Amino acid sequence: MARALRLDPDRLFPADPTTRSIARTLYAGVADLPIALATDAFRPRALFDRFRIDFLATTEGAQDSLDAHHAIHASGWGGRVVTTYRPDGVIDVEHEAFVPAMARFAELTGEDVYGWQGYLAAHRKRRTHFRAAGATATDHGHPTAATANLTPQECEALFARIVGGDWTPADAELFRAQMLTEMAAMSIEDGMVMQIHPGSFRNHNAGLFASHGRDKGADIPTRTDYVRALKPLLDRFGTSTDLSIILFTLDESAYARELAPLAGHYPCLKLGPSWWFHDSPEGMRRFREMTTETAGFYNTVGFNDDTRAFLSIPARHDVARRVDCAFLARLVAEHRIADWEAADLAQELTAGLVRRAYRIDQSTAAARGPKE
Amino acid sequence: MARALRLDPDRLFPADPTTRSIARTLYAGVADLPIALATDAFRPRALFDRFRIDFLATTEGAQDSLDAHHAIHASGWGGRVVTTYRPDGVIDVEHEAFVPAMARFAELTGEDVYGWQGYLAAHRKRRTHFRAAGATATDHGHPTAATANLTPQECEALFARIVGGDWTPADAELFRAQMLTEMAAMSIEDGMVMQIHPGSFRNHNAGLFASHGRDKGADIPTRTDYVRALKPLLDRFGTSTDLSIILFTLDESAYARELAPLAGHYPCLKLGPSWWFHDSPEGMRRFREMTTETAGFYNTVGFNDDTRAFLSIPARHDVARRVDCAFLARLVAEHRIADWEAADLAQELTAGLVRRAYRIDQSTAAARGPKE
Amino acid sequence: MARALRLDPDRLFPADPTTRSIARTLYAGVADLPIALATDAFRPRALFDRFRIDFLATTEGAQDSLDAHHAIHASGWGGRVVTTYRPDGVIDVEHEAFVPAMARFAELTGEDVYGWQGYLAAHRKRRTHFRAAGATATDHGHPTAATANLTPQECEALFARIVGGDWTPADAELFRAQMLTEMAAMSIEDGMVMQIHPGSFRNHNAGLFASHGRDKGADIPTRTDYVRALKPLLDRFGTSTDLSIILFTLDESAYARELAPLAGHYPCLKLGPSWWFHDSPEGMRRFREMTTETAGFYNTVGFNDDTRAFLSIPARHDVARRVDCAFLARLVAEHRIADWEAADLAQELTAGLVRRAYRIDQSTAAARGPKE
Repeated sequence: MARALRLDPDRLFPADPTTRSIARTLYAGVADLPIALATDAFRPRALFDRFRIDFLATTEGAQDSLDAHHAIHASGWGGRVVTTYRPDGVIDVEHEAFVPAMARFAELTGEDVYGWQGYLAAHRKRRTHFRAAGATATDHGHPTAATANLTPQECEALFARIVGGDWTPADAELFRAQMLTEMAAMSIEDGMVMQIHPGSFRNHNAGLFASHGRDKGADIPTRTDYVRALKPLLDRFGTSTDLSIILFTLDESAYARELAPLAGHYPCLKLGPSWWFHDSPEGMRRFREMTTETAGFYNTVGFNDDTRAFLSIPARHDVARRVDCAFLARLVAEHRIADWEAADLAQELTAGLVRRAYRIDQSTAAARGPKE
Repeated sequence: MARALRLDPDRLFPADPTTRSIARTLYAGVADLPIALATDAFRPRALFDRFRIDFLATTEGAQDSLDAHHAIHASGWGGRVVTTYRPDGVIDVEHEAFVPAMARFAELTGEDVYGWQGYLAAHRKRRTHFRAAGATATDHGHPTAATANLTPQECEALFARIVGGDWTPADAELFRAQMLTEMAAMSIEDGMVMQIHPGSFRNHNAGLFASHGRDKGADIPTRTDYVRALKPLLDRFGTSTDLSIILFTLDESAYARELAPLAGHYPCLKLGPSWWFHDSPEGMRRFREMTTETAGFYNTVGFNDDTRAFLSIPARHDVARRVDCAFLARLVAEHRIADWEAADLAQELTAGLVRRAYRIDQSTAAARGPKE
Repeated sequence: MARALRLDPDRLFPADPTTRSIARTLYAGVADLPIALATDAFRPRALFDRFRIDFLATTEGAQDSLDAHHAIHASGWGGRVVTTYRPDGVIDVEHEAFVPAMARFAELTGEDVYGWQGYLAAHRKRRTHFRAAGATATDHGHPTAATANLTPQECEALFARIVGGDWTPADAELFRAQMLTEMAAMSIEDGMVMQIHPGSFRNHNAGLFASHGRDKGADIPTRTDYVRALKPLLDRFGTSTDLSIILFTLDESAYARELAPLAGHYPCLKLGPSWWFHDSPEGMRRFREMTTETAGFYNTVGFNDDTRAFLSIPARHDVARRVDCAFLARLVAEHRIADWEAADLAQELTAGLVRRAYRIDQSTAAARGPKE
């Protein structure tokens, strides 16, 4: 049942006469035509079903409300859309919105977030809240993979400098590092899977940042060390069987050198798929070629895209499946695995691994029924 | 029309009786034979035509005369051979010939090159002179990609230390870094395309350097950072549409991680082809595989070899064309592009991109007529 | 002639009742069956013959006796099993067994190993002893590839700090670095081939190290610089034609960037095969693809596996040969080499290069007769 798109320039751009004028020209002749995007079949929930999405996770900050998730759940719709705990905003003191984020964090939790114990308690409260809304994972996008393992006294002193505004860039990095270890400790308590994706130099374009603010596309990957960076956290929790950490990278040179050996050794580590700039046919192929022989397939987690473009989801998963199957096919053609192994692995790389790695069955967002 | 080679040992090795004696034995019987290299068909300009070279650029230093180029132009020959402005000799204070190069720079320009403003004015004069001789590009071979964006006062103070001989290695590096930014500013004024090719550890072999001097083949690539290194320059000029910088690397790990994302983001950046040690079938293939998905083809500049061996030019371009076409053919075979797109791209990678990237049509060296 | 395996739990696990009890269950029914592993055909020397092993080298420490090797030689068996001089234990002061190793080093050599000259003399004595037992090579597994070229006075002072227990981590690294250069000097004297394989972060797993000690599998590769690291050694001996150094890496990004150019330039450098984590089909393929165009085949040394699993030797060499032949076949299919060149190279990569690189013909362990 087609509806007209309401492309009304006066309504869409009330404050911008230039754009309004351009839009009037552009929309002339199409504004009232019935077009696909305006039909019920192209509404978000219809697409969610048509894409056969089993589980969709957003990320929200520690300081964000989960009202949108609650609204989805309250609507009675059966699609599984859950949140993910992404606390960067109250961990990265170098973020320009750290101060208001902390204020909101205090407000939402009722804890004294400006004291070390209260701050940790606030994280625990919010994690519980996120878990209740279906979350099974946390997400950490730090500049580096640095972790730390400070004494309680050192933590108190560091935190005092952070919230007192009396910190150096080294303090900021050390606090982020220590908080990865604290988050790991809480993950052992509550079973949330940790995702660490370091190595992006954010907001590289100074002019763009000045005019439009952060997160406008000017993020450039940098070399990333994992071996020394993760050691403090691994020294403390590396052999825990309750902890599960999924590592991502923008530095492909780390695949064979650092990440595959680390994931091959530590029971708590798994490798996330090729990410962001490397989320492409050649990039996905290199990921398999450079990690499989040391880490195997079962230390990887299938393909979980991190797109912001809802409409791109089917194509992205389709590419991942084709590239993985092409890799498996080569192994079969070279007699390195049997055809039935490839068939089993294709299923695992597509569905099995990601469901288990993200503990989807533990989500409070119940499935709507049997899935394929 | 064949001529005899004049392989006269007495004339070729007047000061070296041993070599003369060896040469007499070697040349006996061949010295007077007509051989291909001695025929008119193998003279440089005949080969230039036979190779169908459209545009050949040398590099000259800021302190070098362009007499050879003027002689070519004055000869009435129509081949387009132009110079390129390579000012390293008067920028790299760690080069052992910096002092005489500066003296010659002063002499050629009539400027007070030992004062900061005079030094910049001298660069401008020489760039104008190079442009008049057909140059469309500058060339910068620094140890790293470091750039800087100092205040005028800091520049004055730094330059005083450089020309006063009172500099540290850190000063030398900072001065090279600042000069890349100054060169970018001048490129915006005069339209010269900048080429930056960092990352070679020059003259690695101490014994060879002691006995034979620099540039004898002992140059070894090193890890190279671009993301932090280029930021000061990009902070100032990154979004300029008048500036064009072509980046080269000897560190292939930077292709997918740093260079393709940078070129994909900044309008002023393009990627030069696989360079030097990587100017080979496998190296060229890796370049396309690791840059195309993020930077695309149109942020690259085709293949401009940098050989010193005139006779190798056709073979080198032939290899580049075959490797690029093999890459395109794979994309077609995998249904990632259409056959007609590959055909268009083959033409662009071979001729279109390089002509536009190097602004060849803006060269004062006029073309001789229609080319293929 | 089959024999019964003697799987007697009481004898195998005298101190561990739990394991003994499990073993009793497991072995019930098989302990007295004749099985392949218990037959003469599966005894080590029979397998050595069946595997057609031409030359097998172990490594022993400078502080180790060579009694096992002497016993093999004294047995009259003709298999060539030799030792390799691996002095890390008396060079790495950060190793927890450095002090007892030095004591044993003193005892075995009768030298004053706590004085710099005596220490060097002790190395020379042991190297001579190792050579007499058939060794043709030394082996150095340092955290980095750092080398140094200190004055004799600096060496004396550094060594005094090392043996006096008054050293810093920087001293420990500098001493390892200087010792690589000292070992190179001795190799020029006695003809031993040096193997340097840096870049492993040893004993990464703190819990495992605490409970089970070192070398339990928790070794993770790290980024490794060769260009600056090797320069002090190469400044002193790089152009020596008497010295032969075989370089290994765990950092594949160094193949095309650093190692191939270094090996292509310096006569004393060769590249060892893909190592450890990269000793696999994809890893071996990348090694050839990333080193061949710059270093060629003849600056590599064939495949010498470093397995601790005797039974894996044939399969490992078989994989290496298949991967090398697949690479050669591609070069033939792409008309980059001729078929007869591939045939010659296959032979060289399998046998010729490794025999010459390791100077096997100079071993005092005489061959038993004509080999294939």
